[in-house]
Amino acid sequence: MIDSAGIWKDAASVRRHSPLVHNVTNLVVMDFTANALLALGASPVMAHAPQEVEEMAALAGAVVLNMGTLDDAWIASMLGALAAARKLGKPVVFDPVGAGATRFRTETAQRILAEGGVSVVRGNASEIAALAGMAGRTKGVDSLDQPLTVAAAAANLLRHCHVIVISGEQDIVTTRDDRCVLGNGCMMMTKITGMGCVATAAIGAFLAVQEDPFLAAAHAMAVMGIAGEMAHDASDGPGSLRTQFLDALYNLNENAIAARLRVE
Amino acid sequence: MIDSAGIWKDAASVRRHSPLVHNVTNLVVMDFTANALLALGASPVMAHAPQEVEEMAALAGAVVLNMGTLDDAWIASMLGALAAARKLGKPVVFDPVGAGATRFRTETAQRILAEGGVSVVRGNASEIAALAGMAGRTKGVDSLDQPLTVAAAAANLLRHCHVIVISGEQDIVTTRDDRCVLGNGCMMMTKITGMGCVATAAIGAFLAVQEDPFLAAAHAMAVMGIAGEMAHDASDGPGSLRTQFLDALYNLNENAIAARLRVE
Amino acid sequence: MIDSAGIWKDAASVRRHSPLVHNVTNLVVMDFTANALLALGASPVMAHAPQEVEEMAALAGAVVLNMGTLDDAWIASMLGALAAARKLGKPVVFDPVGAGATRFRTETAQRILAEGGVSVVRGNASEIAALAGMAGRTKGVDSLDQPLTVAAAAANLLRHCHVIVISGEQDIVTTRDDRCVLGNGCMMMTKITGMGCVATAAIGAFLAVQEDPFLAAAHAMAVMGIAGEMAHDASDGPGSLRTQFLDALYNLNENAIAARLRVE
Repeated sequence: MIDSAGIWKDAASVRRHSPLVHNVTNLVVMDFTANALLALGASPVMAHAPQEVEEMAALAGAVVLNMGTLDDAWIASMLGALAAARKLGKPVVFDPVGAGATRFRTETAQRILAEGGVSVVRGNASEIAALAGMAGRTKGVDSLDQPLTVAAAAANLLRHCHVIVISGEQDIVTTRDDRCVLGNGCMMMTKITGMGCVATAAIGAFLAVQEDPFLAAAHAMAVMGIAGEMAHDASDGPGSLRTQFLDALYNLNENAIAARLRVE
Repeated sequence: MIDSAGIWKDAASVRRHSPLVHNVTNLVVMDFTANALLALGASPVMAHAPQEVEEMAALAGAVVLNMGTLDDAWIASMLGALAAARKLGKPVVFDPVGAGATRFRTETAQRILAEGGVSVVRGNASEIAALAGMAGRTKGVDSLDQPLTVAAAAANLLRHCHVIVISGEQDIVTTRDDRCVLGNGCMMMTKITGMGCVATAAIGAFLAVQEDPFLAAAHAMAVMGIAGEMAHDASDGPGSLRTQFLDALYNLNENAIAARLRVE
Repeated sequence: MIDSAGIWKDAASVRRHSPLVHNVTNLVVMDFTANALLALGASPVMAHAPQEVEEMAALAGAVVLNMGTLDDAWIASMLGALAAARKLGKPVVFDPVGAGATRFRTETAQRILAEGGVSVVRGNASEIAALAGMAGRTKGVDSLDQPLTVAAAAANLLRHCHVIVISGEQDIVTTRDDRCVLGNGCMMMTKITGMGCVATAAIGAFLAVQEDPFLAAAHAMAVMGIAGEMAHDASDGPGSLRTQFLDALYNLNENAIAARLRVE
């Protein structure tokens, strides 16, 4: 199950092996995502050209797909990277940013999932609800739904992936067989753009060192929440929280994890 | 007129209603803009695909157009979002970044204004001077002109919009009937990329909660300047100023506004 | 030779003249690059549309090409800006991000160099090794090679440019006739995305005020390393290091340079 020793083992493994994480992600969060992956000890690369997605996927320990600033070219890049990852057996995590807000986003997310090859999907409750066919109540990229309500209804998505992560005040990580609820984090994390996208990328880093995608996703989400709490204690607002969050990812150690972990 | 009670009323309204602000903005400032809107309490979304601009505009309380890293695809996105906003009656603020620096930028800005539907235009003095047909003296995206000189000459632009905001050491907000000059801010704000773009986005957030575009623009600019001063007091350079600026937007209260507001 | 008086003279000149630096750079680092150039006192512009690259190059004191998030459109933009700079006699610095990682990147970098007009190339050891035809050992955008090993083998690249900068724990700046090895900086700089890209842009700023490209490159790299050390002394991790780094660039003075410079 999820405990601090297991979380720390994977976090230390990311630092030691510094896996290449190949991101096809959105224009808003590229900088924050790359900095968070570096602070974790991973080696991020952002690359989207069809000419190189297969070579990048071959070098990578995991592939991160994020549809934040979506357009046709970015869809083609995500599909190309997904196909390369599937062919090479690399784990893929997918972030369906804004699913439910527009038909374009909902349909694109469904199309990516239907391709096969996605191991973990991470979204907020509204995004996952939209993908699960529940009535959409997304407002832009923010969520109006509660994770626990959605998790039950989202089981049908597990035809397309191994793990679903629903982020919120509590983070729910669920598979066909396992579920955990993580209680770390702070509300001010919702006042920083890309915090969810960074969580998705962190899952990518953990997938590169941990074969079990449930453990990888849960361990990464625990690290996000714990680093967010550590940062909160040293912050006066979302500007300093973001700075402190990167420092916390970098300085994370087993004691901090053991002292703070809240998991059911 | 512009007073601290009115500014605070709108700032509090942004926090309470958390309006969705739909940004079609440039690649440099997406992160800072989204973080500033979140710190203000608004709900930012960055989306540019023609397939979804109409649905996004329908969800949004205001639309922000910014031509910073301009190209043909971005022009199409801005025109699409503008048409959707006009059709749906959503307020639009436009930032003509770099108008006057190149013919491509000047002509694109004029084309967007000529479409109709822009409520507020915010630029530096050189950009507004270029749009008003004065001899261009822009150096890249920085301004070589003085706001007060330009404001008088820019009246002809008011055929195309309701409010013009000229940013600088003083910020001038002008309509056919009203004008105010705001004196808050600090010089170091010019050493942070995207501070002007963030001002434009803040105007968008205020347009979503304040029907009078003159008040919305003036109140947003006052908040920008006051937060900049608050941040300056806690900063050693532009790196810390940016961090502190986001914290200041988040922590802004009526007392701080009343103590610092400088308006003519 | 490289001494603190010369470095300070150029740094002060950047502040005094505030040269426009035209960047065709990657999506990850645009914000950090623009902020670093502003903190140095330069005037950054990010512009990539074919319609305006020639006008922008005409306004600029230097042009920065960076192939980080490469695709066909960005190649066309870089080639257009390079052609304009060559025609107008503006200095160009080129950052072959990820050369060696994929064939697409290696070939694109070679194509850009073969066009002529690049004055300075800055990369990590693996990138320069790949361009020099050594067996590629790049892992994504990180380097697995040592600068001193590569510098000797990279002489053949000097057919295509005047100066090669190989960044790493030590920075090597080399021409046909001159070489210096700079020892400033800190390891934590490698945990911030875009630090190398910012170094390339800083070289651009110095090229705009210093005619000798060897001095411009060496002085810019010295400033980067010294600011990195200053920032390190005030940081708890990569988040605060980035903030402090921008403050250090802004607050740099002759005494700090003289006290810290390490050059062979």
